[in-house]
Amino acid sequence: MVESKVADMSTPARVVVVFVSRRAAGQEDEYGPMADRMVELAREQPGFVDLVSVRDPATRQGITVAWFEDEESVRAWKQHPEHVLAQQRGVADFYEDYDVTVGQAIRQYHFDRHEQ
Amino acid sequence: MVESKVADMSTPARVVVVFVSRRAAGQEDEYGPMADRMVELAREQPGFVDLVSVRDPATRQGITVAWFEDEESVRAWKQHPEHVLAQQRGVADFYEDYDVTVGQAIRQYHFDRHEQ
Repeated sequence: MVESKVADMSTPARVVVVFVSRRAAGQEDEYGPMADRMVELAREQPGFVDLVSVRDPATRQGITVAWFEDEESVRAWKQHPEHVLAQQRGVADFYEDYDVTVGQAIRQYHFDRHEQ
Repeated sequence: MVESKVADMSTPARVVVVFVSRRAAGQEDEYGPMADRMVELAREQPGFVDLVSVRDPATRQGITVAWFEDEESVRAWKQHPEHVLAQQRGVADFYEDYDVTVGQAIRQYHFDRHEQ
């Protein structure tokens, strides 16, 4: 299941961060643990609401979406020292290319077959 | 390569639509062509900027991100008759659950190893 709190109004996600990337070949042994660690660390940040990450092993293309309560939380996460190091490794070694979009959430929809 | 125009300032993406979904099992023969058709149709919409879609075959979780020039274009796409039918099929048959977030783009970053 998607463990999403996006539609949970007790923790409104006002900001969405979209990270679209293409992994460079190789370095799987290093990349995997670092990516896992970043997800773990993101979840601990103040203002964190939710995170979903998908990568297609065949195309090496991945999308990570993180929702936060406010822009300040996003900025703090971007500047977290361990995250800064990971970003530097990403540019130096791990990614062919990436795009980051930060957006102010306007509206959200949610569907769950088992909540009907 | 990620064919992204997001960082191309000649077509500013002011709105980002994030569709996070978990596919129900089965119906691959029907889902694949419909999903492909929706991507093709989205690309033809006025105000369309870019679209990236990734699904992990192992977890059945997918994320599609689409960028548009303005909210009006997003609304028109949501209400496109063929898209409405696809949304109905999605709820009836194809998805276990999904979350849609529509966001006003605040800022965007772009990295491409081959543009350095």
